[in-house]
Amino acid sequence: MSVTLARLAAVIESRKLENGGDPEKSYVSRLFAKGDDAILKKIGEEATETVMAAKDARVDGDASKVLYECADLWFHTLVMLAQFNLTPQQVLDELARREGISGIEEKAARKDVLRDAAETDKH
Amino acid sequence: MSVTLARLAAVIESRKLENGGDPEKSYVSRLFAKGDDAILKKIGEEATETVMAAKDARVDGDASKVLYECADLWFHTLVMLAQFNLTPQQVLDELARREGISGIEEKAARKDVLRDAAETDKH
Amino acid sequence: MSVTLARLAAVIESRKLENGGDPEKSYVSRLFAKGDDAILKKIGEEATETVMAAKDARVDGDASKVLYECADLWFHTLVMLAQFNLTPQQVLDELARREGISGIEEKAARKDVLRDAAETDKH
Amino acid sequence: MSVTLARLAAVIESRKLENGGDPEKSYVSRLFAKGDDAILKKIGEEATETVMAAKDARVDGDASKVLYECADLWFHTLVMLAQFNLTPQQVLDELARREGISGIEEKAARKDVLRDAAETDKH
Repeated sequence: MSVTLARLAAVIESRKLENGGDPEKSYVSRLFAKGDDAILKKIGEEATETVMAAKDARVDGDASKVLYECADLWFHTLVMLAQFNLTPQQVLDELARREGISGIEEKAARKDVLRDAAETDKH
Repeated sequence: MSVTLARLAAVIESRKLENGGDPEKSYVSRLFAKGDDAILKKIGEEATETVMAAKDARVDGDASKVLYECADLWFHTLVMLAQFNLTPQQVLDELARREGISGIEEKAARKDVLRDAAETDKH
Repeated sequence: MSVTLARLAAVIESRKLENGGDPEKSYVSRLFAKGDDAILKKIGEEATETVMAAKDARVDGDASKVLYECADLWFHTLVMLAQFNLTPQQVLDELARREGISGIEEKAARKDVLRDAAETDKH
Repeated sequence: MSVTLARLAAVIESRKLENGGDPEKSYVSRLFAKGDDAILKKIGEEATETVMAAKDARVDGDASKVLYECADLWFHTLVMLAQFNLTPQQVLDELARREGISGIEEKAARKDVLRDAAETDKH
């Protein structure tokens, strides 16, 4: 796995209250202390901010904010994974597995062709 | 970088229309053909599905759907990154950089303590 | 209540399967047949589309798409309300009640001033 | 239009800075002072909270939080409409217009049948 993801996951794990994380000192510990909804709300927030950053990037030509917001989004998904005792490696495994059966892309494409027919029909 | 992320990024890059990607055959090529909004819409969709999967997991004790939806979310952020000529490595670098200056967690924590005071004040 | 909201709520109610709604003929009946997640997913989707339309409107000066997407968002919240046996009137009552105690705006403002202090601290 | 919506829209309009709204005293004025992104971010947040409240309601049988979060979501769409010089009446008119041409439901249903064929094909 990416060293960065592994290290981030380890830091996040150490921020859990049962591992001595202190909500007074750590933002992540505070999220853990607040629980599921606080963490999930951040997923929704950061997704929205990523979308807005991408819209801005297309206007001002500066993609760096997309990078920044995407990092925020990934970071909060790592916190969510930890909250559910999952690891980024498991997500990467799932992504690799799909690429493996690979049919996924082709299946999705077939599905999408039908979907397009539907969209066309709509207008 | 993670081999999986690197490989996925390469596959996604190859799906761009200018790299010979065929919207008839590839779901990702179709997203590229549709453009920014189609891709960004997927970010919003997959974030919502991730949140719902996490709510379900807390009830039925099965976290595998969280994994699956998180993989979908990451996958579509990879498509978005490619659309803006960014790479997952740049996101990882941004995450590593923050860990480096590291103040981030502590800064965010300080911010959050004030924010909590505000929340408390609200109720 | 708004005649439009009342009429829409009545139409949506009539689309429930137990009221004879037919998923073959009605989009709303189909949402009801699919259940909670399909409806909630639409809330996330339409919120994202509203945000994108607003970003576009600021660039091209055409706010009509904001109107259109906002109508979509409201419409799907009406479907959700029906799914939980709630009515738009109850939402309006809740909004009126808040205006009544009214402290809400002032309370939120106080909270927000503290939040701003926190934001300022962050940067 | 709903008296509540009309009154809320009037109050929100009065909170604009050019109408004398004071960010120190009013939460809505503060949103206006912050601008588009702050308002749009709230749309994303409140949509996510609505989805979470609905998931909770299905577990604990208490739909009142759905009502509360839906009110929050509608409220922030009203702020967004004002920010773009649109009114809730225009949204209601758009909803009424669709009901009028009415084909909308039937068209959406046809589209959806094709979409279902696609979904079926996927699995």
